[in-house]
Amino acid sequence: MEKITGKAVIAQGGGPTAVINQSLVGAVLQARRYPHITNFYGALGGVRGLMEENFVDLTQVSTHNLEMVAGTPGAGLLSSRDKPTATDCTRIFEVLKRHGIRYFFFIGGNDSAETCRIVNENAEAAGYELRVIHIPKTIDNDLLVTDHCPGFGSAAKFVAQAFAGVNMDNRSLPGVYIGIVMGRHAGFLTAASVFAKRYDDDGPHLIYLPERPFSTDGFLSEVDETMTRYGRCVVAVSEGIVGEDGNPIIASLVDQVEQDSHGNVQLSGLTSLGAALVQLTKADLDIKRVRSDTFGYLQRSFLGCVSSTDAQEAREVGEWALQFATWNNVDGSVVIERVGDYAVKYSLVDLKDVTGGTKEMADEFIEGRSMVTTAFKNYARPLLGHLPQNERIHAPEVRKIMKD
Amino acid sequence: MEKITGKAVIAQGGGPTAVINQSLVGAVLQARRYPHITNFYGALGGVRGLMEENFVDLTQVSTHNLEMVAGTPGAGLLSSRDKPTATDCTRIFEVLKRHGIRYFFFIGGNDSAETCRIVNENAEAAGYELRVIHIPKTIDNDLLVTDHCPGFGSAAKFVAQAFAGVNMDNRSLPGVYIGIVMGRHAGFLTAASVFAKRYDDDGPHLIYLPERPFSTDGFLSEVDETMTRYGRCVVAVSEGIVGEDGNPIIASLVDQVEQDSHGNVQLSGLTSLGAALVQLTKADLDIKRVRSDTFGYLQRSFLGCVSSTDAQEAREVGEWALQFATWNNVDGSVVIERVGDYAVKYSLVDLKDVTGGTKEMADEFIEGRSMVTTAFKNYARPLLGHLPQNERIHAPEVRKIMKD
Repeated sequence: MEKITGKAVIAQGGGPTAVINQSLVGAVLQARRYPHITNFYGALGGVRGLMEENFVDLTQVSTHNLEMVAGTPGAGLLSSRDKPTATDCTRIFEVLKRHGIRYFFFIGGNDSAETCRIVNENAEAAGYELRVIHIPKTIDNDLLVTDHCPGFGSAAKFVAQAFAGVNMDNRSLPGVYIGIVMGRHAGFLTAASVFAKRYDDDGPHLIYLPERPFSTDGFLSEVDETMTRYGRCVVAVSEGIVGEDGNPIIASLVDQVEQDSHGNVQLSGLTSLGAALVQLTKADLDIKRVRSDTFGYLQRSFLGCVSSTDAQEAREVGEWALQFATWNNVDGSVVIERVGDYAVKYSLVDLKDVTGGTKEMADEFIEGRSMVTTAFKNYARPLLGHLPQNERIHAPEVRKIMKD
Repeated sequence: MEKITGKAVIAQGGGPTAVINQSLVGAVLQARRYPHITNFYGALGGVRGLMEENFVDLTQVSTHNLEMVAGTPGAGLLSSRDKPTATDCTRIFEVLKRHGIRYFFFIGGNDSAETCRIVNENAEAAGYELRVIHIPKTIDNDLLVTDHCPGFGSAAKFVAQAFAGVNMDNRSLPGVYIGIVMGRHAGFLTAASVFAKRYDDDGPHLIYLPERPFSTDGFLSEVDETMTRYGRCVVAVSEGIVGEDGNPIIASLVDQVEQDSHGNVQLSGLTSLGAALVQLTKADLDIKRVRSDTFGYLQRSFLGCVSSTDAQEAREVGEWALQFATWNNVDGSVVIERVGDYAVKYSLVDLKDVTGGTKEMADEFIEGRSMVTTAFKNYARPLLGHLPQNERIHAPEVRKIMKD
């Protein structure tokens, strides 16, 4: 098969992850093996960079610099949440055509895959030969088809390590602790808090996911039961929990919500969910020490919390994107297939297969209304890589003698 | 000098840190060299454990278990914030006497040092031969006399890595980001956010400390200036910032505050400071993307973010506590002296020298009303140990050709 000679461009969209730059560097370094890719541009700031011709030439960057960037969280090429209109897409093609760009790689989530699809349709309609490859990325792990998403493992590792620490803090100074975790509709990231549990009485004792209706009464009675049983209670709550009516719990708690250009309600900046649950717990259960943290941006950007599995896979999806575009001459989205326990391989699927919706946690992953199953642990454990040590003191009790 | 033969007991007080168990294990393992310490007990739950005779025998614990515990955040012996009354102290002496305990080690902050002092006075009044050694610990770094406190370096490393990640996230998707950092009266931990800055335009661009009066107008005008200059703004704010009148800013923002048994206002669980500053910024400066996180408990408990310097020093203050009690036959608080750049040595000071108050940041560490100085960076940098890599892409711009 004849390889198309021309330039390539890569962009990053949506919220950054700890390993999004691994995918970028994977594609760019893989391309250096091939003379048919004459230059590899980076578009600065996602779709906007493509429209406004804000390109840097990654072909001229040193390998060491790229390797350093690969280990850095945040979008090295900057990002945006812009969704191109039909007019925007026309503009993009003009830009690509004028620059002789024949390969377009877009690293992002569901919205970025949709952008890829639109750009691809426009390219086909215009009869312009363009390879468009979507490279998956999202901490939410909610993309269709793929077994899991690059970016999830590292964020999950952060959540697990955060809860592991919080659990030990809460064991030291008992009370109720509520940690609010990112995840609009999919509970994967919140569910990963389960890896903080080591001993039977370790927290999180309760895990509330957006996949199961949240009831205030149920929450209060489960916290009460846990306090009675263990004298303390660590709770993981997804920011996206919904009530029986399907409406976000947070919607009833805050007056104003923002919407981004994709029509998604903006949840991350609001700290009210945690604060509201704290108030509720204190008032109803008469517990003095009730605390809440909203993990917020730290879980997707913290410097120095990367799953080795996640980093390797993010790198390889970038490399495969380049290989698929080069050798197979097709468009699509790179997906990770699980082919063993634990092993993966990479394939390419139609863009429209991944843009039709988002994935939620399977029923088999959820136990009751506030815990995850062993099936989920088996699914997610390899994705987090190695977790740091934590241990309790195993010491015999000393006999009390004061009453002798 | 004759060594006193008897049992030892160790307890942990106040908020846990990432390395508080290093000090515990340092003292216990050091004691294993000496036959004059017949048993080494751990009191479970701080002062309460001493009063209620809740002891475990650490003499019987395996070395491996202790080493694993040393690397684990949170108080391995559990903690409390109880402050003993005179009656409580009488009870403690009865317990110590009955158990033949002659060495009392208490790992904690200012409040724990005060407890040590009271216990010591009671022991002297009762004519009971007891060595009382306070082992310093606090993420706030606000203890008197000592150059710095074990626990601070690791929490500072967390804050620096959090802001480094947030800075890159904010650079990817520009806007205003406000991170609220722990610290009641001392700004050391908030100041450590400065180590996230690498390039000149990196955040945090503004650092607000409790040592300088905070004005809402000043804050808004500085955020506005930063947005004009860089198109984005990352702000580090101490939870303990006070207004011109000396009252906590947060006090005017929240209706209800709790007080712990030492009369300290409880700030950590309240997320309102960040939320309030977000509202303020959005309303006054008309910026859409304004986000806030309150780092909360993660900064003192996160599993897997430990400064190697901090871990080593926390270990050694525990070892020295045992050595001072054994060879010098005196009571006191272990302090770290800086004797080079960077080197330290350990000494023992009078308990009353460290209980008289808390330390704040020196004037020479603070620049204007929203930045720290190079002197602060020179002081704090060695305490954080190694920080993970982060790098930008250094690529030449591609010439725009659409208008040609």
